[in-house]
Amino acid sequence: MLQTEGLNVAVVGVTGAVGTRMLQMLESSPLPVKSLLPLASARSAGKKVNFGGKEWTIEEAKPESFDKIDIALFSAGGSVSKKLAPEAASRGAVVVDNTSAFRMDPEVPLVVPEVNEKALNAHHGIIANPNCSTIQMVAALEPIRQAYGLKRIIVSTYQAVSGSGAKAIMELETQTRAVLDDQPVETAIMPVKGDKKHYQMAFNAIPQIDLFQPNDYTFEEMKMINETKKIMDDQTLQVSATCVRVPVAISHGESVYIEIGKEGVSSTDIKALLKDAPGVVLQDDPANQIYPMPADAAGKKEVFVGRIRRDPDVANGFHLWIVSDNLLKGAAWNSVEIAERLVALGLVTY
Amino acid sequence: MLQTEGLNVAVVGVTGAVGTRMLQMLESSPLPVKSLLPLASARSAGKKVNFGGKEWTIEEAKPESFDKIDIALFSAGGSVSKKLAPEAASRGAVVVDNTSAFRMDPEVPLVVPEVNEKALNAHHGIIANPNCSTIQMVAALEPIRQAYGLKRIIVSTYQAVSGSGAKAIMELETQTRAVLDDQPVETAIMPVKGDKKHYQMAFNAIPQIDLFQPNDYTFEEMKMINETKKIMDDQTLQVSATCVRVPVAISHGESVYIEIGKEGVSSTDIKALLKDAPGVVLQDDPANQIYPMPADAAGKKEVFVGRIRRDPDVANGFHLWIVSDNLLKGAAWNSVEIAERLVALGLVTY
Repeated sequence: MLQTEGLNVAVVGVTGAVGTRMLQMLESSPLPVKSLLPLASARSAGKKVNFGGKEWTIEEAKPESFDKIDIALFSAGGSVSKKLAPEAASRGAVVVDNTSAFRMDPEVPLVVPEVNEKALNAHHGIIANPNCSTIQMVAALEPIRQAYGLKRIIVSTYQAVSGSGAKAIMELETQTRAVLDDQPVETAIMPVKGDKKHYQMAFNAIPQIDLFQPNDYTFEEMKMINETKKIMDDQTLQVSATCVRVPVAISHGESVYIEIGKEGVSSTDIKALLKDAPGVVLQDDPANQIYPMPADAAGKKEVFVGRIRRDPDVANGFHLWIVSDNLLKGAAWNSVEIAERLVALGLVTY
Repeated sequence: MLQTEGLNVAVVGVTGAVGTRMLQMLESSPLPVKSLLPLASARSAGKKVNFGGKEWTIEEAKPESFDKIDIALFSAGGSVSKKLAPEAASRGAVVVDNTSAFRMDPEVPLVVPEVNEKALNAHHGIIANPNCSTIQMVAALEPIRQAYGLKRIIVSTYQAVSGSGAKAIMELETQTRAVLDDQPVETAIMPVKGDKKHYQMAFNAIPQIDLFQPNDYTFEEMKMINETKKIMDDQTLQVSATCVRVPVAISHGESVYIEIGKEGVSSTDIKALLKDAPGVVLQDDPANQIYPMPADAAGKKEVFVGRIRRDPDVANGFHLWIVSDNLLKGAAWNSVEIAERLVALGLVTY
């Protein structure tokens, strides 16, 4: 598994829900990894992780950690990235950052390889991994945009609690047992750990993901709006979003409505495009009740698309139902895929 | 509670999730009820129900059951309504039918009192109660339509399993315990009892409610599309829908996108309209994390609306998040409210 000639890879936030999956994705990747540097907060330093048949000791992430690193995958929260990603880049590492810290920075490419791999060429040491809910949507829509143009997106999300981390999954389980057993429900994390109020997630739907912005959209909704325009490199694209948390542990669902740039296109045409699209799996056979579901997508790297059909009243309007594992394509896998492309394009050498 | 002068009321399907709530709504209504005739299938005949401080014996629903009935509330499935509602009407009862049997019949008014109470005047003995997901949406949108006109609706639903009956709630609970205890999950009811395949509902989202139609929309989605146009009496209104079942027991959520007939309207204008709208409660204060949620709406008669905001890219486009108890305003309460209006309008006398 480990190569004698290859990359020195650091994973920052290696103990988290995404960090552990970054290791899994790295292990199953053809990337030539020579050494792993697992980094986390001081609290986790000294613990061990297994990777490539070897045990590695977690160290506290510090600026000098990155001295001999080729690729650093960050998923330890925005404040850690803001502090350490520029340090890593200045030491010669190429950073793939899974937080929102640098996503809208015009100097930082925001990349979903299936959509805008070419943007990697302009990097200055930091590449941003988009928000989970954005990634799966643009990966599914890009083939349609290429073929017919895309004028408008209206999306409503059905997002899993693992987007708030491993502790949020535990809270959902604890609350669910409490409701079933008619016991008091304790609320501490959802919808947003750092916000003032917390609500029951079990058997509920909460229309708040991340903090509210001055325009009454949540930050999650604004991420979908702004990141989509940046990734698709089209500021005229109309995008609007409603983000809702549902009592699902892993995998986001999205009800996506689009208006394309051409009339006379059928849902059959769109299905044909998505059948052959990279990273996308078409699951669309209503007669046999085949459509994507979070329970099926969890643990898989692909983006699953189904329920494709035309708006009966709008000639260029179509619905899609898009599901993907928010921790994999939405985070860990997209980051590792970016690393793979960096090497393939010769942007990281060893 | 019971009146010496008043109405003879039959409730058909009195043992079901909606039927039991019809009794609760009747009990708390100012309607003058003289007698109750609880009807169900032969299986439940002989059982007792309490109503108005008295015990009543359930009888098997037959044509002659309706001989002395003034108002008959039906919620025992489409086939029962198709057979018995015309019999009840021919015997002089006014039927309020909570199934889809007669909703699109041009001779049958389809009524949400807050929207089209006047349509009751044209009844021929049968009045249809719309689909649960339609009712809460049109009740919230009607004040906006009145003020500014309505051109387009795109809705994505987050629907509770109680829409499939009391057994579906039990299945969700059983499956949820099985998942938490790492036991095999049994599937028999969701998404559609009468369809070929059944899927896990616990910790999942299923984009199928009711059977698929030839155009790849589900029947639930077509109900929302067709019923909305009929209730709002506007065949030019563009409506499209995606209906998704989520692991919630009671109360549907809806992410509703609308385009209104006027530009220059602000979200503040729309909030002001909904603040005073009949049957609607505005819950829209992002700074204090106030928005509607299924867990809060369950057991309440009103339609709750929040997250109202303009599309940043479309001058006449707005989002709303609409939540209501699908068994009350979506079914039992809307039916009893229709009965109240029939009496108030002099269309049923005693």
